[in-house]
Amino acid sequence: MPYINIKVTKENLSQKQKAKIIEGVTAVIEDVLDKKKRTTVIIIDEVDTDNWGIQGEQVSIRRQRNNE
Amino acid sequence: MPYINIKVTKENLSQKQKAKIIEGVTAVIEDVLDKKKRTTVIIIDEVDTDNWGIQGEQVSIRRQRNNE
Amino acid sequence: MPYINIKVTKENLSQKQKAKIIEGVTAVIEDVLDKKKRTTVIIIDEVDTDNWGIQGEQVSIRRQRNNE
Amino acid sequence: MPYINIKVTKENLSQKQKAKIIEGVTAVIEDVLDKKKRTTVIIIDEVDTDNWGIQGEQVSIRRQRNNE
Amino acid sequence: MPYINIKVTKENLSQKQKAKIIEGVTAVIEDVLDKKKRTTVIIIDEVDTDNWGIQGEQVSIRRQRNNE
Amino acid sequence: MPYINIKVTKENLSQKQKAKIIEGVTAVIEDVLDKKKRTTVIIIDEVDTDNWGIQGEQVSIRRQRNNE
Repeated sequence: MPYINIKVTKENLSQKQKAKIIEGVTAVIEDVLDKKKRTTVIIIDEVDTDNWGIQGEQVSIRRQRNNE
Repeated sequence: MPYINIKVTKENLSQKQKAKIIEGVTAVIEDVLDKKKRTTVIIIDEVDTDNWGIQGEQVSIRRQRNNE
Repeated sequence: MPYINIKVTKENLSQKQKAKIIEGVTAVIEDVLDKKKRTTVIIIDEVDTDNWGIQGEQVSIRRQRNNE
Repeated sequence: MPYINIKVTKENLSQKQKAKIIEGVTAVIEDVLDKKKRTTVIIIDEVDTDNWGIQGEQVSIRRQRNNE
Repeated sequence: MPYINIKVTKENLSQKQKAKIIEGVTAVIEDVLDKKKRTTVIIIDEVDTDNWGIQGEQVSIRRQRNNE
Repeated sequence: MPYINIKVTKENLSQKQKAKIIEGVTAVIEDVLDKKKRTTVIIIDEVDTDNWGIQGEQVSIRRQRNNE
C-alpha cells in the first residue's frame, strides 16, 4: 500500500525510463518492508526547469550559466 | 480550511465531472467536520498513465495488456 | 486507483469521523468516475494549528484572537 | 534542505515572476532558520482553474460569475 | 535534484529500514537518470492506519477484520 | 488562493519562527502575484531527521558523522 511521489525535472524521460523507475523503486520498497502482495502506487511528476528552484535560483537559469 | 489533493489518471475528465468531484468531496468534508463557513480547497491533478505505476508496472502497460 | 490526500487541522478527529471521510470521499470519486473495482487510496494528515497559516497568520493565533 | 511546493492557478506567470518567487521564498526560509549553505528546493505547480476548487466550486466558474 | 516522497503505514519501521529505503530508492533513480552528482532528496511519511483508507475503509479496520 | 507546503527537518522550530515563515512567504507570494485579498494557505511539515534522506543517506547519520 505504500504511495510514492517522484518529482524530476522535465527532460524527455522515455516511457522505458519511467517503467524502470517504477519497477526499481517498487522492488526496493517491497524488499525492505518484507511483505508480499503490497499494492505500491507510484506517481512521477515531470517539472519544467523554470518551475524548479534550488538555492534561490531557477534550474533553467543555473543550467544556462553553467553551459556558457 | 481543509486542503485536498486528488490525483487521477488523465482520461478526458470533463469540466462537469471535475465540478462534481469538487462539489461532492467538499460536501462530505464539511458535513463530517460539522462546521459552517469552512474554506475547503481542492486541487485535482490529472496524471499521464505512463507516469502512474501500480504493483511495479505502468498503468499504460497494464491497460494495453488487459485489452489484448 | 485515484489517490487523495486530505489535510485538516488537528482537533481530535475521532476514528469514526475519519472513517466517514474515507467512505464518503471514496463514494464521490467512484461515482463521478463511474468505474467499478477502483482502488481509491486516501491519506488524512492532521496538522497542528501552529503549522497552518492562512492570509499570513497562524491558525492558532487567529483562533485565539477570535475568542478574545 | 527545506523543500517547498507552491501551487498557484495557471495564469501566464512569467519566467521572471517564478524567479522572484523562488528567490524571495528561499530568502525568507533561510533567514528564519538562520543557517548558511542550506539547499532549499522549491517546486512551483501551475494548476488549471478547472482543476482548482474553493468552497465547493471551480475557480473557472467563480471567475466567470464574478465577471458577468 | 529529484525529490521523492514516500508514504507508508506507521508500523515501527527501524532506522535501518529507513536507511535502506533511502539508499535503495536513490540508487534506482540515479541509475535510471544516469547522472552523477545529483542531489536526490527523499522524505518518508509514516501514516497512522486510522488515517489511511483503501477502497473506502480504514486500514486499521481492514486489518482487524482480517485477523479475526 | 495559492497553496504552499513547506517541509523542514524537525528541530524545535518555535511558534514565532513558524509565524515568521508564514508571514514572510505569504508576503513574497502576494507581492509577486500582485493581487489583493488572496487567501494564501501555508502548511509546514516538520520531518524527523531519520525520515529525511539526501544523496542516499539519512540526515541523522550525516549530522552524526559531521559532528564526530
